[in-house]
Amino acid sequence: MRSAQPREVASPANSLVKVFRRALADGTTQQGWLAVEGPFLVEEALNAAPQVKTHSVLVGSGATEKFSALLHRLPSLAEVTQVPDRLFASVAQTQSPQGIAALVELPSYKLENVAAAKSLIVVACRLQDPGNLGTIMRAALAFSATAFLTLQETVSPFNPKAVRSSAGAIFRLPVICGLNANEALTYLSTRVRIVAAERHSPASLSQADLRGPLAILVGREAGGLPEEIARHASQLLSIPIRREVDSLNAATAASIFLYEAARQRGFKY
Amino acid sequence: MRSAQPREVASPANSLVKVFRRALADGTTQQGWLAVEGPFLVEEALNAAPQVKTHSVLVGSGATEKFSALLHRLPSLAEVTQVPDRLFASVAQTQSPQGIAALVELPSYKLENVAAAKSLIVVACRLQDPGNLGTIMRAALAFSATAFLTLQETVSPFNPKAVRSSAGAIFRLPVICGLNANEALTYLSTRVRIVAAERHSPASLSQADLRGPLAILVGREAGGLPEEIARHASQLLSIPIRREVDSLNAATAASIFLYEAARQRGFKY
Repeated sequence: MRSAQPREVASPANSLVKVFRRALADGTTQQGWLAVEGPFLVEEALNAAPQVKTHSVLVGSGATEKFSALLHRLPSLAEVTQVPDRLFASVAQTQSPQGIAALVELPSYKLENVAAAKSLIVVACRLQDPGNLGTIMRAALAFSATAFLTLQETVSPFNPKAVRSSAGAIFRLPVICGLNANEALTYLSTRVRIVAAERHSPASLSQADLRGPLAILVGREAGGLPEEIARHASQLLSIPIRREVDSLNAATAASIFLYEAARQRGFKY
Repeated sequence: MRSAQPREVASPANSLVKVFRRALADGTTQQGWLAVEGPFLVEEALNAAPQVKTHSVLVGSGATEKFSALLHRLPSLAEVTQVPDRLFASVAQTQSPQGIAALVELPSYKLENVAAAKSLIVVACRLQDPGNLGTIMRAALAFSATAFLTLQETVSPFNPKAVRSSAGAIFRLPVICGLNANEALTYLSTRVRIVAAERHSPASLSQADLRGPLAILVGREAGGLPEEIARHASQLLSIPIRREVDSLNAATAASIFLYEAARQRGFKY
């Protein structure tokens, strides 16, 4: 709860305005705080407190009253800065800016802590579409995955489009990104069983046993998983689809793996 | 097979160039032919012949040689028009035009013909995101759905982004769009069992019997299905996900319904 008046800034050259502008374009600030835009994501970040810390909020002057309930929910140390609506629009990255953005700090996770007895881990390998990556995070949280990992050469989960597609899942799902494939998978294979989604494998997802600690490797639609990554999997599994269909969308495939794993585990949430 | 030389056109005011420009933006020509761009979709259209008829191809002069194999596969009545690369780029809607586009005619389907004994029909209700709609078509074909229907107030399946996301599924899947909800669902309910994806239903997808002729209603993520549509379903089914997660992406949810239906039907393709 806070009641202090917001600081007012009108200059596009203001240093905080510059930080917001760059972070909303890149996804994160230089120190790694996530930049999010719009009331839905700002509220989701507040809902995920205290694990997620909201440090700074930028609000357009015309939107201050509309978002007063949201602004009152901010932690007392959070800084609120009000700017003219036109300046907000020039900082925002969305086509119809809604007048509120925030810089939030996510918890930091280590591989050692996410690979445990009840693990259900998703590992994204070289996916390039941020929308797909975000959709996978959303499904991962929905099906109670315990962590979401990305290997090197994968689009960042903090990419603004990935964050939007995650629909707030990024605030609640333990995420570790940019892992070295060989190191991470070698380590994981000592703790959990690794299965890989592989379009052309004769072994069917629906017939595999997915109970127990599990990591699911998901690669790009075209080409699938590189051999040096797939070799870490104890089993390659395909979703049974019509032969003449090349592949499913990567987020669709990952979500079906998660559904099947959760189904076999009895959907215990 | 064809060997005739392409017609050369250099004027942006040429009537065919104008038809392509407008159709690539809108998705279809005035007579309802689908406009597709890029070698992948043009090839998929050719692969779906003779049901899908390719009438006209526009090719950039710099791309003619690269696509000569594709051009030789065209039916003899198809018209090929070559334009300067800059003109092609001005007609194209993609950011990195690949120099080939086509106007193709899809088969026309009637509701009476798609509701049969082995039906697995997807009905999209008021979805607005063309990418999601296309991803659902792709999954529908993959899991051997027999038809894809859209009700009024749903984004067009012929929207260029929907067509791209369908990854060619639109050429092979019987599609009927813009149906009157009450008429179509009243008719369908006499022929197949109708189930609806409904986030808050206590009945679980994984426990429902999805064998037999089936239509699956899928609505928007936020808000779900309007009551006047949901009442046509004999059962509302939810995908079991964590309570604190609002919903899944609409394409994810539809794909999981299709996977579960195909699983129960024994994946007979």
